[in-house]
Amino acid sequence: MTAPLHEARPAAPGRALPDTQQGMRRRNLARVMHTVSAEGPLSRAAVASRIGLTRAAVSTLVDELIRSGLLEELGPERPGRVGRPGSALAVSGRGPAGIGAEIGVDHLAVCAVDLRGQVRARAVRQADNRDRSPEDVTADVTDLVRQVVAEIEGEGLWPAGLAVAVPGLVARDGRTVVHAPNLGWHDTDLGTLLPAHLPLTVDNEANFGGLAELWLGEAAPHDFLHVSAEIGIGAAVVVDGRLLRGTRGFAGELGHVPVRPDGPPCACGGQGCLEQYAGEEAVLRAAGLASAGNRVEVLADRAAEGEETVRRALHDAGVALGIALTGAVNLLDPEMVVLGGALAGLAPWLLPSLRAELARRTAGPACPVSVSRLGSEGPLLGAAHSVVRGVLDDPAAVPAPV
Amino acid sequence: MTAPLHEARPAAPGRALPDTQQGMRRRNLARVMHTVSAEGPLSRAAVASRIGLTRAAVSTLVDELIRSGLLEELGPERPGRVGRPGSALAVSGRGPAGIGAEIGVDHLAVCAVDLRGQVRARAVRQADNRDRSPEDVTADVTDLVRQVVAEIEGEGLWPAGLAVAVPGLVARDGRTVVHAPNLGWHDTDLGTLLPAHLPLTVDNEANFGGLAELWLGEAAPHDFLHVSAEIGIGAAVVVDGRLLRGTRGFAGELGHVPVRPDGPPCACGGQGCLEQYAGEEAVLRAAGLASAGNRVEVLADRAAEGEETVRRALHDAGVALGIALTGAVNLLDPEMVVLGGALAGLAPWLLPSLRAELARRTAGPACPVSVSRLGSEGPLLGAAHSVVRGVLDDPAAVPAPV
Repeated sequence: MTAPLHEARPAAPGRALPDTQQGMRRRNLARVMHTVSAEGPLSRAAVASRIGLTRAAVSTLVDELIRSGLLEELGPERPGRVGRPGSALAVSGRGPAGIGAEIGVDHLAVCAVDLRGQVRARAVRQADNRDRSPEDVTADVTDLVRQVVAEIEGEGLWPAGLAVAVPGLVARDGRTVVHAPNLGWHDTDLGTLLPAHLPLTVDNEANFGGLAELWLGEAAPHDFLHVSAEIGIGAAVVVDGRLLRGTRGFAGELGHVPVRPDGPPCACGGQGCLEQYAGEEAVLRAAGLASAGNRVEVLADRAAEGEETVRRALHDAGVALGIALTGAVNLLDPEMVVLGGALAGLAPWLLPSLRAELARRTAGPACPVSVSRLGSEGPLLGAAHSVVRGVLDDPAAVPAPV
Repeated sequence: MTAPLHEARPAAPGRALPDTQQGMRRRNLARVMHTVSAEGPLSRAAVASRIGLTRAAVSTLVDELIRSGLLEELGPERPGRVGRPGSALAVSGRGPAGIGAEIGVDHLAVCAVDLRGQVRARAVRQADNRDRSPEDVTADVTDLVRQVVAEIEGEGLWPAGLAVAVPGLVARDGRTVVHAPNLGWHDTDLGTLLPAHLPLTVDNEANFGGLAELWLGEAAPHDFLHVSAEIGIGAAVVVDGRLLRGTRGFAGELGHVPVRPDGPPCACGGQGCLEQYAGEEAVLRAAGLASAGNRVEVLADRAAEGEETVRRALHDAGVALGIALTGAVNLLDPEMVVLGGALAGLAPWLLPSLRAELARRTAGPACPVSVSRLGSEGPLLGAAHSVVRGVLDDPAAVPAPV
């Protein structure tokens, strides 16, 4: 299968395509893909009426998208309608797929998601990645990517790109891990370490978690603050359906918002940061569980069993989260705060004090706080879906299968 | 003079125009205006090469813009060049003008800015607007607008719209003042109170101050946090050259970020908010000047004279600003923090402790803090320029002169 649409480097997500006839064609291809993806199966006529182009123009676009394997025809629509039956179009389940990878502190995971949003393959390896070299870790990731790609190729799919979630700050080049404290990585260019034939995007796990919520969350608003935790506490700020990245790519460092300015010193250089009260280590210490194994699960289990010290520690973490979120809500006026990542699993014990703190610091109705259903799956799914979204946003830039 | 381009309601600033041939023409008109505005005077050929359209296409667009009074020809370029001399184009100094108004607690101001960015008329009235009815205050504003419009009409300009800066929260409809505590206004629809023949936009003074910094500040970055104060403390969050408004339009409430969570209660419902440490009343109280007249000037004068209590009060306010800004910088990762509004006049005494606090709470290089040259002129200029930007962004939507 060839990809005749292949024309140029993919446009960055959300970046405007050039305002020329050619750019207009590329945008219209994207419109067709998004329409069929959101509302399909649809006939050509239905697509034309949805996007306000003529049926003839849509047919040309659709034919191109079928040739490149992005759309497929399901056969004639069911009879009983007036007029000649049209053939229903659907997003292809055998076209390009997005490969997502997650480099966690305790595990590696890779998955493939097709254009319909279905997870088609998955591989996981438990590993203590603290202080392993980037070369060793990325060699393992490359292995897992190969497994997953081999699996989907057997089903007629091909990889359109690789997106990697990391627990650290990533530069705006989308390749360089500037600082991942729990991995011990500094200024690590993953572009030289991962398979060169796949277009690569590296991003912070909290960002991919927030994007997953935007794309996959139930009734996700377009303006929200997604708070997540692994070892540290991160946030993704989504504004008008777009991720706010910051000048250096470091936005969303909620964990380093001062909660009590005279509190304990923090590794970031600050004092009394949120992480000193609601970060994993701080909560484990307060719960008297300093050296627990699978730490978040242990906290959840002990809290569920009613252990008072653990519940008290989580209550206090909720208060600290409430104070930091009051500031964030006043600055950003989001429609909602979503607790994701490991925090989702602890929500029953964090939420009451968190919500009470937000409410008592707000004159009007407090910003609603909800819990992500994606939980710790968010970053991996967000990574894979970011590749899929890239295909929908600019179908003409999809790389041909290798 | 007629305005043959008049076609539709103005597009909201930054909102994409429809992706049709007609939309493309409107975007190209905007491109011509922005290019001549930023780099003019320019020949048609120079405009064509800058925006990547043919000379013929640009000539058609330019002719339309000249007919509607938005561009003018300055006559033949200076001789000595090869080929037929082109006529240099400039943005008109006799076309539409933006009318800006500021409703302050102690004063009202109105000004007119032409498409070249020059202030062409200005009217100010000192008045204590605390607890005056919206009807009385807007009647005064309407008077001042009439004066200013009469003045510019004498010079061949006409008003393209009115933008009003208010010290309070404004709904996203751009008309309704939801709450202006120091005016005593609640849910006040200014759309019914101000001249109906002018397109109206109402916004928070901190937002217009931030936009003025974006458009007029020297070397203004595209990602910054603009902090300003009148009676309260507000901020404008500018991301990728766009103002972040928030779901309800309430973003930027830096004054209600908790600085010391157990501190004094605040009218917002919170406790230990920044305003309790760095708001005008708090600083005056700490400086022992509770009932001073023109308060910010008094603070600046006393600090300049070396009065120790006043300097100490401003030092402490700088510390509180530094704590709140540490949180904001960690969340937003701006390129710069800009002190504007009344804070600009107090900067010499606020900045040392503010910068020290930011630096000591940051591991790497701290976010730079600069001082706006626009100072308390920012909101008024930002309002007038917002109308001018609206004209440049969608010249086809400019209303005809009444």
